[in-house]
Amino acid sequence: MSYDTILEIGKRRGIVYPSFEIYGGLAGFIDYGPVGSRIKNNLQEVLRRQYIVSEGCMEVECPTVSPEPVWVASGHVKSFADITTECLKCGEPYRADHLVAQKANIRTEGMSISDLAKAIDEYRITCPKCGGKLENPYTFNLMFQTHVGPGRNKVTAYLRPETAQTTYLPFKRLFETARRKLPFGVLQIGRSYRNEISPRQVMIRLREFLQAEIQYFLDPATKNDPVNLPQEAKKNISIRTKKDDVVEKTIEQALNEGIITCPLIAYHLALALRFFTDVGIDPSKLSLRQHRDDERAFYSSDTWDVEYLSPSIGRIELVGISDRGDYDLTQHINVSKQDLSVNIDGRKFVPHVLEVAYGVDRPIYCLLESCLRPADKEGRDYEWFAFPPAVAPYRAGVFALQKKDNLPEKAREVFELLKNAGLYVYSDESGSIGRRYARADEIGVPYAVTIDYDSLKDGTVTVRDRDTKQQRRVSISELPALLK
Amino acid sequence: MSYDTILEIGKRRGIVYPSFEIYGGLAGFIDYGPVGSRIKNNLQEVLRRQYIVSEGCMEVECPTVSPEPVWVASGHVKSFADITTECLKCGEPYRADHLVAQKANIRTEGMSISDLAKAIDEYRITCPKCGGKLENPYTFNLMFQTHVGPGRNKVTAYLRPETAQTTYLPFKRLFETARRKLPFGVLQIGRSYRNEISPRQVMIRLREFLQAEIQYFLDPATKNDPVNLPQEAKKNISIRTKKDDVVEKTIEQALNEGIITCPLIAYHLALALRFFTDVGIDPSKLSLRQHRDDERAFYSSDTWDVEYLSPSIGRIELVGISDRGDYDLTQHINVSKQDLSVNIDGRKFVPHVLEVAYGVDRPIYCLLESCLRPADKEGRDYEWFAFPPAVAPYRAGVFALQKKDNLPEKAREVFELLKNAGLYVYSDESGSIGRRYARADEIGVPYAVTIDYDSLKDGTVTVRDRDTKQQRRVSISELPALLK
Repeated sequence: MSYDTILEIGKRRGIVYPSFEIYGGLAGFIDYGPVGSRIKNNLQEVLRRQYIVSEGCMEVECPTVSPEPVWVASGHVKSFADITTECLKCGEPYRADHLVAQKANIRTEGMSISDLAKAIDEYRITCPKCGGKLENPYTFNLMFQTHVGPGRNKVTAYLRPETAQTTYLPFKRLFETARRKLPFGVLQIGRSYRNEISPRQVMIRLREFLQAEIQYFLDPATKNDPVNLPQEAKKNISIRTKKDDVVEKTIEQALNEGIITCPLIAYHLALALRFFTDVGIDPSKLSLRQHRDDERAFYSSDTWDVEYLSPSIGRIELVGISDRGDYDLTQHINVSKQDLSVNIDGRKFVPHVLEVAYGVDRPIYCLLESCLRPADKEGRDYEWFAFPPAVAPYRAGVFALQKKDNLPEKAREVFELLKNAGLYVYSDESGSIGRRYARADEIGVPYAVTIDYDSLKDGTVTVRDRDTKQQRRVSISELPALLK
Repeated sequence: MSYDTILEIGKRRGIVYPSFEIYGGLAGFIDYGPVGSRIKNNLQEVLRRQYIVSEGCMEVECPTVSPEPVWVASGHVKSFADITTECLKCGEPYRADHLVAQKANIRTEGMSISDLAKAIDEYRITCPKCGGKLENPYTFNLMFQTHVGPGRNKVTAYLRPETAQTTYLPFKRLFETARRKLPFGVLQIGRSYRNEISPRQVMIRLREFLQAEIQYFLDPATKNDPVNLPQEAKKNISIRTKKDDVVEKTIEQALNEGIITCPLIAYHLALALRFFTDVGIDPSKLSLRQHRDDERAFYSSDTWDVEYLSPSIGRIELVGISDRGDYDLTQHINVSKQDLSVNIDGRKFVPHVLEVAYGVDRPIYCLLESCLRPADKEGRDYEWFAFPPAVAPYRAGVFALQKKDNLPEKAREVFELLKNAGLYVYSDESGSIGRRYARADEIGVPYAVTIDYDSLKDGTVTVRDRDTKQQRRVSISELPALLK
C-alpha cells in the first residue's frame, strides 16, 4: 500500500492526522488521534518496561525550552543548520542541497553555500512552484528560537533539537542517585523540535516530534568489556558497513569480526531489534547500517542505525546508537565551568556516553505499515490492523449481544472485571455484532468479548480472536488471565 | 515541613530539581528526576485509567507549537497578558500588580496600566533588588513566540498556553470517531507554556508545565440532564461559593440547592476528588471554590476549582472545571471560516464544552507533601514517603540477603517473575539489608522482597511492608498476586 493510502486510513480511523487542518494546516506537525494516542502510549510503555525494569535504567523528564548556553556547548547554535534558498517571487523556501540534487541530478552532500549557489546558476534552477528566480542560498539554523521573560533582561532560548543534552545537564544529580557508580543509563521520552525548511512526508520528517533517548554513562576503562548478548544478536540480519559493503550475518559475528567496534553497541542493536519486533514492526524489513567515516560526528568513534525498509517510502532510520566518547560532558564542563568529572576507585575522569536514540513517530508509521492487513474474501471486506496486544489501542471490546434482557448489565459486570484487572477495554453497544467486530478489527483490537443469553445462564462468554476470527466460549472468571 | 525542606528532599532523592543548574538555573523550569518521573508517569496512568477506561473518554496528543490564528481565535493573542514593570537600573522585571500589592499593601486586582503607574509613583515604589527607579508599566503577552520555517514566508507561532484549544481544532475528526454522537470527552496530556514575568515557587508557577485537560463536547439540549453522582459527592467538604460564603456540605447538596449550577460540574468535582485521593493527596486538605462573577471568564456560566490547603504554602488550585458554553468552537468557526457545528436528530448546533483542566506538577507537589512522614524513634531515623502503590516509583525492591551462595541468582528469578507479571520492580544489592529497606522507604517503595537462605530451601521470601515495617513470609508463587 502507498504512503498516502496508509495515512488516509490513519486519518479515518483516528490514528494520526495533520495538525491545524481547519486553519489550512502547517507542514511538519501531526495530531495523534484517539487510536494513535493509545498506540503511542503503549509503545512508550513497552519501551519503559524494556529499559527501566529489564535494563535498570533511570528516567528523567526535562524542559523543552532551554537557554542558549546549553546549545552553544552542544554545538547546535553553530552547526545545527541547513542551507536554504527562497523564491524571490512567491517566497517558497527550499533546502538548497535537496533542490539541486533533484533538479540537477547530482550528489550534493557536503556542498558549501557557494557550491550550491553556483549549481543553481549553472543548472538554471528556478522555483518548482512558480518558476520564479531563487535567492542566493544562506544558512538557516534549525532550532526554534524564543525568549524567556520580558524586557531587556530576557533570556534567549531554543526549543530543544534533541533530549540528549537536557539529560546531560543534571549528570551530577543522576550520578548521586546511581550512588556514585558507573555505568548507568538514563532514558528521556519527550518532544524535540527541528525547524525543517520544507518538510514533506508527514510522519517521517516532523518539525515537532517525540524522542526516546537513552544515555549510558560509562567508565572508559571498562566500556569495552565483553557483555552477554541477547538472543537477537544470534540471528542473521543485513548489515551495511561504513565502507558501504552489505553483508548478511549476526550481530555477534559482526562484533567478533570487528565490524561493530564495541560490545555495548552490539548489545543495544540487538535490544533495539527486540523492541521493534515486540511492538509489531516486521523484523524481516529491519537492517543495520554503520555510519561512514565522512558522515559520522567527529567525536563519535562508531555510530549505527537500525533501519526499516518500507515498501511505501524506502529506508527509514528508526534508532541511532552512538559512542559519543566524553565529548558532551566535556563541552558542558568547558562552557558552564562546572566540574562534571567523577572520582571512582581513585581515578578522576569524565564519563563517556553511549547514546541509544529512538524516534517514536517513525516506528509508529512502520508498525502501521507492518500490521495493516488487506481486505479478504472470507467476510472481511475492510482493511484491518494486526497490532500485537502490547500496543493495540485496547486489549478487548466488551459487547452485549442485545440492548435488553439484562445483557447490558451483565456486559457492564464483565467490563468492570476486566478494567479492575488493569486492562484497557471499551464497550460498544451500537450496530450488529458483526459490525462491532469489524470496528474492532479496523483499529486492531485483538479480542472481542460478547455477552449473550448463555452468559446469563452459565457465566460464560464468547471470545473472538481478531487474527483467526475464531470464537471460543470461556467462563467469565477465566477471562482476565486469558486476555493478559 | 516548609516548602524549602520538601524541595530539598525532592532534590536529594531524585524527585524534582531546578533545570539548568550548571548554567545558573532559569526560573520556572524543573527536571523530574528518576523517582519523580516514575511518580509522574504513574499519576498519568491513574488519570488515564479513570478517564479513558472508566469514563470512556478518547485521548489526543497535539503539537505544542501552533500558528497564530489558533490563539487569535482563543483570545490569547489579545488578552493572555500581565502588566510588567522593569528596573531602569538592573533590568529586573516585576509583575506590576503583585509588586504594588506587596509594597503598598493594597488590593490591585483589575487595576489598569495607568492605575498601576500612578500607584508606583504615589507609593514611591522602587526596585526591591537594587533600589533603582521602575519603568512605566506595560502589557506583556505571556505566550512564548517563535517562527516556523525560514525567510519571508515564515509563520508566526506560539507555544501553547493550554492544551484545550489544540483539542478543539480536530473536533470534526473526533466527532467522526465518536460516530457522530454527543456527548463525548477528550483527554489531552501534554506540556503547556506561560512566559511568567517573575516566577517564584518552583513547582507551583512554572513557565513550562504539564497539563491533563479533558474537554467534554455536549448537546446543549441535554447537558443539564441529571447524572448519577459518584460516592465522593456524598461526603462533606468545605465549599467557598461565588459570593465568598464558606459552607460545609456535600457536592450533592450543593447541586440540589443550586449552588453548583450543572449536574455535570458536580459529577466532575466528585471525580476529581477521587483522583486526588487515589494518588495520595490528603483528602482532608481539599476544598471546592466557585469562581466569583467578577473573575469568571465572560463566556463561562459557572466555574469551579478544587483547591488543596498546603501547610507549607497555602491554597493551591489543582483542577478547574468550567462550563465554557459554545464559546471556543464558535470562535474557531469565526476565525477559520470552517463549519464546526453538528447535525443531530435534525437539529444543527454548535456543541457546548465542559472543561476539566488538571495541572500535573502541582498535584505532585501536594502528594509529596501529603505522603512525607517524619523520622520516628522506632528505628526510622529518616523522613520517608507513604506513597500509595498506584503512584510509588516502584512496586517493590527485590533484595538478595547476601551476594553469595546462589542468593543473587534466586533473587534474579524472583525479579523476573515480578517483572513478567507487569510490575515495576528494581533490585538493590549493595549495603546491609537495613540500609536497603531505608533507601526503599526514602523513595516510598511500598514493599521490599528479601531472598534469604530459607528461600533456597522452601521457596519462600520475606515481604516487608513499608508502612507497618512488618515482615511476613510468603511463597514465591503467591508473590505477584500479593503485590498487585
